[in-house]
Amino acid sequence: MGHDKNVRVLGIDPGSNVTGYGVIDAGRTFRPVDYGAIRLGGKQHGLAQRLSMLYQEVRRIAAGCGAQQAAVEGVFMSKNWRSALKLGEARGAVLAALADAGMEVFEYSPAVVKMSVTGYGRADKEQVREMVMMLLGVDKVMGLDTSDALAVALTHAMQGGLG
Amino acid sequence: MGHDKNVRVLGIDPGSNVTGYGVIDAGRTFRPVDYGAIRLGGKQHGLAQRLSMLYQEVRRIAAGCGAQQAAVEGVFMSKNWRSALKLGEARGAVLAALADAGMEVFEYSPAVVKMSVTGYGRADKEQVREMVMMLLGVDKVMGLDTSDALAVALTHAMQGGLG
Repeated sequence: MGHDKNVRVLGIDPGSNVTGYGVIDAGRTFRPVDYGAIRLGGKQHGLAQRLSMLYQEVRRIAAGCGAQQAAVEGVFMSKNWRSALKLGEARGAVLAALADAGMEVFEYSPAVVKMSVTGYGRADKEQVREMVMMLLGVDKVMGLDTSDALAVALTHAMQGGLG
Repeated sequence: MGHDKNVRVLGIDPGSNVTGYGVIDAGRTFRPVDYGAIRLGGKQHGLAQRLSMLYQEVRRIAAGCGAQQAAVEGVFMSKNWRSALKLGEARGAVLAALADAGMEVFEYSPAVVKMSVTGYGRADKEQVREMVMMLLGVDKVMGLDTSDALAVALTHAMQGGLG
């Protein structure tokens, strides 16, 4: 694949409360296309309703962003099984939505994402955000869920030799 | 709600490998309408693809079964966070599919299901199956994922005063 050709990647960082997303173009340089965060609805909605909203929103973003490949941040460990269950529920809705939108889905562990973006596998989220903003030429500070999503998109572009 | 009126309930027991489902009519008596198990595709498919297949299958069953209410077996505890994460992923796809099919979703803990169906909160799965088959007048032995799904449907019918 020539370096002149841009490849669009959707990055997703699923979370039980907030799911970050970020779309980038990777070619000679990296360019941000769209990014933001999806908040899981409040408790006035039942769990199934909230997961359905997450599914619909991710599917809408995936279908509309022009990318064929999605990079998702994987799970390295969890504090306890209850947190893991909740994170799993969000991941189930997100991953099904990506596949249903026809995307090819890749997973990268947090350590690989940190290493790819900052050169240091144990970087904290603020350091990841700083490098993401630098690599994408973004000045306005974004939320940490959003920068994590952009980081996994960048990781896929770099690891996949797309950049 | 009069006892002459039948109410149809879809029961679901989500699992990281097998998800049981069962549709019953509850009126003066309980009647099985349809039941079975959805196996998550093999490892030749990626995780997102397998969750998408689970989502599609549950949505198809929910939309076609004629029930407006779904009863889902909840999670009481988990061996470890990895099992909880995997179960969560299946639950995420299943719950989103139920809500997307327009169903109202209710959750019942395993202990409540066991108590409702067998009168004993610590009954084992075989005892639950035996009672489910008796209550529904089914002779042919079914898988334990399927009987668990029918059990949660029966629980909803009994707890909700539908029976």
